[in-house]
Amino acid sequence: MRNESAFLFDLDGTLVDSVYQHVLAWKEALDADGIELSVWRIHRRIGMSGGLFMNQLLRETHAAISPERIAHLQKLHAEAYRRYAGQVRPLPGARELLDTLSAAQVPWAIATSGRIATASVNLQALGVDPAVTTVVTRDEVRHAKPDPDLFVAAALRLNVPVERCLVVGDSVWDMLAAQRCRALGIGLLSGGYGTEELERAGALRVYEDPADLLGHLDEVCARD
Amino acid sequence: MRNESAFLFDLDGTLVDSVYQHVLAWKEALDADGIELSVWRIHRRIGMSGGLFMNQLLRETHAAISPERIAHLQKLHAEAYRRYAGQVRPLPGARELLDTLSAAQVPWAIATSGRIATASVNLQALGVDPAVTTVVTRDEVRHAKPDPDLFVAAALRLNVPVERCLVVGDSVWDMLAAQRCRALGIGLLSGGYGTEELERAGALRVYEDPADLLGHLDEVCARD
Repeated sequence: MRNESAFLFDLDGTLVDSVYQHVLAWKEALDADGIELSVWRIHRRIGMSGGLFMNQLLRETHAAISPERIAHLQKLHAEAYRRYAGQVRPLPGARELLDTLSAAQVPWAIATSGRIATASVNLQALGVDPAVTTVVTRDEVRHAKPDPDLFVAAALRLNVPVERCLVVGDSVWDMLAAQRCRALGIGLLSGGYGTEELERAGALRVYEDPADLLGHLDEVCARD
Repeated sequence: MRNESAFLFDLDGTLVDSVYQHVLAWKEALDADGIELSVWRIHRRIGMSGGLFMNQLLRETHAAISPERIAHLQKLHAEAYRRYAGQVRPLPGARELLDTLSAAQVPWAIATSGRIATASVNLQALGVDPAVTTVVTRDEVRHAKPDPDLFVAAALRLNVPVERCLVVGDSVWDMLAAQRCRALGIGLLSGGYGTEELERAGALRVYEDPADLLGHLDEVCARD
């Protein structure tokens, strides 16, 4: 594999099978605060920054928005998610994909819209140590996805121009953020979006999950 | 509204916001039986008959298939679903859509791949009494979706030729079953599939949820 590209990975739904648990955890949080919202609408917002997601949901449901209310909902979500977290596993091929890239000396990093508090559970499930691996979380940037700040910060930490990076994600927000920083987006179906949604948001190519991407790495990254 | 068409509704994800709860209930059932399967793959099978769904999943995961094992998994799923059922609500506009059709004397029925045991919880949430409304469940037909038997049986009970029916559903299995009995499929996004997935499976038109369909009824059913 020629060492020309770097990989920037989203975490939830991309390396770890946690999207549906996040969705129902948000559903519980919203219900507890008296906000009625269909579950599929929550699903389609997952992967955005939590704050942006909240602003948009509260606007859609015509509920009053205050920083206190958003903080309260985020707390309810984090509590509910911890109850679901025992179900969460790495996606098929995730560990093997990261190991393959490491063995080939292809730089890679993780860039997640989640905060370190929830991300650390997932990183542990994945066997990734943030002391060794480059991990950028929501805590470290001003704007999360669909703004490109997380990916720009991750590329900077890897010391690779972001234009040479492949952004691997499961949501349209990852693909839009990739376009906005002139990286290339690779979509995965493992977060539950459809192929065409990801392609229309700019995905160069769409695979089922990390195992499927690993099996087709030479389609997106030249190997010797 | 001219009384020329009849509406055949799927239940989960179409009239009732229950798909994601079914997905995680299946995840729990599979985990408890030692079958590892990504959550998005479960989501994409929801709406098929439970038995067919099980056969396909067990084949995909190369697990041994026996009628006893399938019955055991279905029991685990039903138990887990009952724990989630308290969260389940009618989708926005579902009740109003059914009332509008009734008021206009347009015949309608519900045809679900679920068994009456799980469906009855949802019908209650929706305020539909199976003693008054035509409801066809998995118990009454030999083959469930994507076979068209459920819709054919529902049309027969309404005494309307199935070719004059509009099948409203959230999954590609509903759309495929509609095509197979020469009905017209109307897709709803409220089960979490993407627009293009539904269109490619043959949906005449795709709306967000029952409220959105109600607001656009004259696109699919002539009104005077």
